[in-house]
Amino acid sequence: MGPTIIFWYEFASTYSYLSAMRIADAAQRAEVEVEWRPFLLGPVFKSQGWDTSPFNLYPAKGRYMIRDIARTAAARGLAFQMPATFPGNGLKAARLALAAKAQGEIGGFTRAVYAAAFGKGLDIFDDAVLTDCLLSAGLNPEATRTLASDPAVKAALRANTDEAQALGIFGAPSFTTGDGELFWGDDRLDQALAWACAKTPAKS
Amino acid sequence: MGPTIIFWYEFASTYSYLSAMRIADAAQRAEVEVEWRPFLLGPVFKSQGWDTSPFNLYPAKGRYMIRDIARTAAARGLAFQMPATFPGNGLKAARLALAAKAQGEIGGFTRAVYAAAFGKGLDIFDDAVLTDCLLSAGLNPEATRTLASDPAVKAALRANTDEAQALGIFGAPSFTTGDGELFWGDDRLDQALAWACAKTPAKS
Repeated sequence: MGPTIIFWYEFASTYSYLSAMRIADAAQRAEVEVEWRPFLLGPVFKSQGWDTSPFNLYPAKGRYMIRDIARTAAARGLAFQMPATFPGNGLKAARLALAAKAQGEIGGFTRAVYAAAFGKGLDIFDDAVLTDCLLSAGLNPEATRTLASDPAVKAALRANTDEAQALGIFGAPSFTTGDGELFWGDDRLDQALAWACAKTPAKS
Repeated sequence: MGPTIIFWYEFASTYSYLSAMRIADAAQRAEVEVEWRPFLLGPVFKSQGWDTSPFNLYPAKGRYMIRDIARTAAARGLAFQMPATFPGNGLKAARLALAAKAQGEIGGFTRAVYAAAFGKGLDIFDDAVLTDCLLSAGLNPEATRTLASDPAVKAALRANTDEAQALGIFGAPSFTTGDGELFWGDDRLDQALAWACAKTPAKS
């Protein structure tokens, strides 16, 4: 098996948007496989004593984050619009993403959800918004919703969230490599890819 | 006047170490002037309801920070050793830095203190450690200490800290430009330098 990184993301996370829109291309250039792993930040934040995003708890940090994302998005030619409610509720999108994964379409669906959430500022807990995302990823909305409501999918999302915490993940996006190395933030994507390459023996 | 950035730093801050050791070279390459501005994070953290560093309040984040700095320092050929007590007390060093600034030696003294704090893990509240830093920056320890104890220097440090908060600064290192743009973190140094250049009319 060649080099792989796991991409840990939460659909309500602004910095995850930045990574989601570029990770497929960046990983392909680096010849690294990506495992897309949605999880929920809510339980992680709760375990740190927070009942909402730190960007709400610490307004100076929240104001800065919006400006920082706006600058970076502009530099990358990405649209950026904060949704009216932040953080949004990423639960439905995360379950649908796991159902999309089972159909081999998690990358496209994930990008569609982030483009809706932070490119257009839409509410990703709204079923009509999610239907558009499923369609744009080439998925059948009804069949994917049925799959997403399976107890196994719900359990898989809880397991992702538990595993994230066990790995020491405290925010999103995060990246982990096969040797257990953790990288936090869109700013560390390139370092994570380089690490995965350096630590994986070349194929013979 | 050509492009300038203000470098806001706290001597107890690990990520400020990374920036302090490279900002002079990076700014020279970008043809940007640097104004060195030590301040105290303690009052900023207190206003957010924290009585210590967030790296202590949130242990997963603290463990990650140490690993992240270790990786980045290694990639840059920088020594890295956490001091026994974190965060250290940067008050004396910050006042001495302002006294060094009056003598045109703030860059060298700042680098010496960070190299002691995070290159060697020494206690920068220890007078013997600070004496070595002053000497290595070519400063007279006694004269600089006399200057640092002047009420005007103490007031200048308080004013820096107040101004940092007024600018929306919530962590260190931070960088600001003449048009009021704020950049947070060693990861944004290059972006801050580029911003300063782009927003300053070329000299005729």
